[in-house]
Amino acid sequence: MKIICRKEDLLYGVQTASRAVSSKNELPILSGIYLKAENNSLTFKATDQEIAIEVSVFCEVEEAGEIVVPGRYFNDLVKILSDVPIILESYQPEQLIVKDNSSETLIRCLDPADFPAMPQNTSGEISGKISAKALRKLIKQVSIGISNDEVRQIFSGILVEIEKNQVNMIATDTHRLALGSAVFAGDGQGMVILPSRTMQEVLRMLAGVEELIEIIISKNQVYFKILNIILTTRIISGQYPPYRQVLPAQNLFKNNIVINRQKMLAALEKGLLLNREASRNKTSIMTLKFSENNLNLSAVVPDIGRTKDDFAINLEGEEMQSSYNARYLADALKVIDEDEILMKMTGPTTPAIIEPLVDEEGISNFLYLILPVRTIN
Amino acid sequence: MKIICRKEDLLYGVQTASRAVSSKNELPILSGIYLKAENNSLTFKATDQEIAIEVSVFCEVEEAGEIVVPGRYFNDLVKILSDVPIILESYQPEQLIVKDNSSETLIRCLDPADFPAMPQNTSGEISGKISAKALRKLIKQVSIGISNDEVRQIFSGILVEIEKNQVNMIATDTHRLALGSAVFAGDGQGMVILPSRTMQEVLRMLAGVEELIEIIISKNQVYFKILNIILTTRIISGQYPPYRQVLPAQNLFKNNIVINRQKMLAALEKGLLLNREASRNKTSIMTLKFSENNLNLSAVVPDIGRTKDDFAINLEGEEMQSSYNARYLADALKVIDEDEILMKMTGPTTPAIIEPLVDEEGISNFLYLILPVRTIN
Repeated sequence: MKIICRKEDLLYGVQTASRAVSSKNELPILSGIYLKAENNSLTFKATDQEIAIEVSVFCEVEEAGEIVVPGRYFNDLVKILSDVPIILESYQPEQLIVKDNSSETLIRCLDPADFPAMPQNTSGEISGKISAKALRKLIKQVSIGISNDEVRQIFSGILVEIEKNQVNMIATDTHRLALGSAVFAGDGQGMVILPSRTMQEVLRMLAGVEELIEIIISKNQVYFKILNIILTTRIISGQYPPYRQVLPAQNLFKNNIVINRQKMLAALEKGLLLNREASRNKTSIMTLKFSENNLNLSAVVPDIGRTKDDFAINLEGEEMQSSYNARYLADALKVIDEDEILMKMTGPTTPAIIEPLVDEEGISNFLYLILPVRTIN
Repeated sequence: MKIICRKEDLLYGVQTASRAVSSKNELPILSGIYLKAENNSLTFKATDQEIAIEVSVFCEVEEAGEIVVPGRYFNDLVKILSDVPIILESYQPEQLIVKDNSSETLIRCLDPADFPAMPQNTSGEISGKISAKALRKLIKQVSIGISNDEVRQIFSGILVEIEKNQVNMIATDTHRLALGSAVFAGDGQGMVILPSRTMQEVLRMLAGVEELIEIIISKNQVYFKILNIILTTRIISGQYPPYRQVLPAQNLFKNNIVINRQKMLAALEKGLLLNREASRNKTSIMTLKFSENNLNLSAVVPDIGRTKDDFAINLEGEEMQSSYNARYLADALKVIDEDEILMKMTGPTTPAIIEPLVDEEGISNFLYLILPVRTIN
């Protein structure tokens, strides 16, 4: 193989593919990036067997060919090359020479025959398009509900549910649940559970993208087409619990509270700080006392101190007092963009809902359900 | 004590003093920041017994007093307070209440009687002033020579030598030596060895400062007065070896080589990268071959690959080939601001000198001496 490629294009390709390079040392070939040069195009492929990424860039091909470069080394080398056309040339199947205007680096490579086959982008049962902006918001907001529990694998992922031109995403660790929705222009309906890591990679690739994103869901995998990148992910097998049963019926809500998001976040952060002083691993409990025109948030840690915040709110319905994990509340407030949130409670010991407060014509596409914690007093 | 202080001033004080708060848990009182309110001023003091920092800010004092707050907690709390006048109030000697417009936090504190006495700023044997800009450059450049060797403590510090309106700083790990100079307007002469950590703190505090810095050197400690901050540091005891004997006499230099700094650095980085692929802890050796109009830098790591760079230089004197630790060369090139460096060699196995290339009327205030490494071939 012999090609000439702009440094910028080469760097884009290698940095994109690098995201799927395995960081574990189980199979040496998975630490590599597969390169294939043909038809004025250089294609990069990488997979860690959970995610696979494929991307192509323009190049001048003098001699077609393929090779597997050590991923991390090649990535870091391309970064420091001069910003000039770069020549890649392999004399032997397992040796690549990389040249810029003044340097020549020879890299021992891996055998392309050992590189695993990439998932094939066949047609799936469900396919359609979603705006990059909506997908970005959806993943960012719903991800806060993901569990770190490695035992129950389904809770380490995001449930993606497609129904009638709408996509819903759900994540829960059983103490709280995040649910987001967006318009999905496509065919089919059904649901899959996708690994959290994949979704974070999709989120990263969506940065700055304005175009529509294509999604194809087949039995064993899901394809995301983001610009000229194809990201394929495995699906987590298992049955997601019927989450709709957890959502309280409208008639159970005893109040509607409009709260300034930044003020509440500042109060929660003081509680979290107090708790950090005491111990890093304990739950940071904060008590919220909702009066007609005031919210009082307080936390006490014996021997360390106590903190309280008071500010005006708009409450319709019953006054109430309840305690929550401050971290869980703060997580939700951090991913909401709106200035005000709407909190709805069903009782001091039963689930509450947090939503962004949208104007009369707007539709809230995000809902967060949180369980109170029991306290001794 | 009861005071009202602008959040901005409070944050400046606590963040400045925090730099001297001990991160070790040996003496609990050293994890605190001592606060004293009197005469429209709030003074912050902290020390880890190597560095001591004292700084004062303006405040309204309703009731004078003193208290020792837990350093890290207080620092992080002040950061998240609202940007309004902050009230600090202590009802009991070991309790402080911190109020912003909506919150009230009570912090359990430490007994001010337990806080160690701060070093007294008495007159020293040497005192004078140096420009912040020159001091910044001096510390940044010379610090690269500091040794990580914890056994020979003197090499973990910087030698500060005052002589006739000039300050010299020297650091060496015995494989290389960095020497910088600047104008010092003051009285006295002598030398002290200062801990590396202190110098890094001084460097940090000099960021953005344009004023003159006052330095007072006494028998046991050195004072730096930077704006309204007083930083006191202990001195490392011991005898620094006579470094001037190491510097080659002018007539020993066999050549003068003018090299583009960025081009050489890019080549060194390729060698470092190649070596990182092989092993993280091995010395990265790079061979430099100086011909009349060309510098060739090359590195080889069996089974991984090899890299070489070639570019034009200006050589006066003998052609020569020698090998160096690539990290050591790169360290020097990174702290030099000039576009070109001057390298002078005494032979392939004897010390070389690197300096910034200054124009005819300029004076180079930095010199770096480096020993070649022995290679098998």
